Amino acid sequence: MVSLDFYFDFSSPYGYFASHLLDRVAPGDWRWQPILLGAAFKASGNAPLVDQPMKGDYARRDWDRLSRQYGIPYTLPTVFPVGAVAPSRAFWWLDQHDAALARRFAQLVFHAYFAAGQDITAPQTVADLAAQAGADGAAVLSALGTDAVKQMVRAKTDAALARGVFGSPFFLVGDEPFWGCDRLPMVAQWMRQGGW
Amino acid sequence: MVSLDFYFDFSSPYGYFASHLLDRVAPGDWRWQPILLGAAFKASGNAPLVDQPMKGDYARRDWDRLSRQYGIPYTLPTVFPVGAVAPSRAFWWLDQHDAALARRFAQLVFHAYFAAGQDITAPQTVADLAAQAGADGAAVLSALGTDAVKQMVRAKTDAALARGVFGSPFFLVGDEPFWGCDRLPMVAQWMRQGGW
Repeated sequence: MVSLDFYFDFSSPYGYFASHLLDRVAPGDWRWQPILLGAAFKASGNAPLVDQPMKGDYARRDWDRLSRQYGIPYTLPTVFPVGAVAPSRAFWWLDQHDAALARRFAQLVFHAYFAAGQDITAPQTVADLAAQAGADGAAVLSALGTDAVKQMVRAKTDAALARGVFGSPFFLVGDEPFWGCDRLPMVAQWMRQGGW
Repeated sequence: MVSLDFYFDFSSPYGYFASHLLDRVAPGDWRWQPILLGAAFKASGNAPLVDQPMKGDYARRDWDRLSRQYGIPYTLPTVFPVGAVAPSRAFWWLDQHDAALARRFAQLVFHAYFAAGQDITAPQTVADLAAQAGADGAAVLSALGTDAVKQMVRAKTDAALARGVFGSPFFLVGDEPFWGCDRLPMVAQWMRQGGW
């Protein structure tokens, strides 16, 4: 079986939309991999979309349009983008023992930020969401500041960069890279055909 | 009837692929509008894809993959990107009198650059392609350096920028903007449904 990796930043609207569309459009046994795009942007010379003239206006409109097109709840957060350090750390700490729980947590984080307008940079919010997903919230809270967990997020982000990941969402089917939410139909075709 | 505008730069591989896919995926009475993206890049702070680390490598691979996926002949030109001034001027000069001829010419320019490896910045090549499309090659050659034609290309590019166009390909269905070759299915859906 070919590996399926879904890279995203919790602060990325296109990552959020992809988290909803992935199972609809290209179902499979995806490994969810939150990373911190700030590092990727440094390496690739990119900047957050909303800071770019013209492109930023287009992106805002496009996110609203995607929300209406697929019926996905979405409101641009008032503080945007954010450094999604806390939820990324919590994810990888949870993922060590229970990938399914970590994935439920990731979906709750995305929903909290892009649908419920919550501050996902706040450790207590992150712990509460982890508890909702079925984890021990207090344990998550105390894990967030440990060096081991900090190092884990850095290592995951570095590993993604080393595989050529430079944006969110980014999909790797084996080693074949696909960038962007609107590439999901191509991803599905690649998975069905095993490439071309 | 809503207006359909297809903006592209003759030096853009994604513009080239879109020129092949437009009629297949989102058929309609598109106005072909070559512009000079250098100006748009200046306004939006973008740079040519191939100059961007990581993203450039991805784009090169993606162009080959699109070529195989759709059976569209394609080789990355040895000199790339280029300032497509001469063919853009010729296009708009031809378009004044015969939009169908100008479109045939545009298809020949794209083919010359991305399939046949020709230098589309050379005025004589441009004149020859115009002749192939059914125009008077010598008249095109002498028109290329005139102030009126220079001004026309600048005005078309400025008008595109004023409408929010910042990349290639870029589609406007009425005033609804769509950026990128992989948005053509969404463009088609928007055209069918009249928006959502």
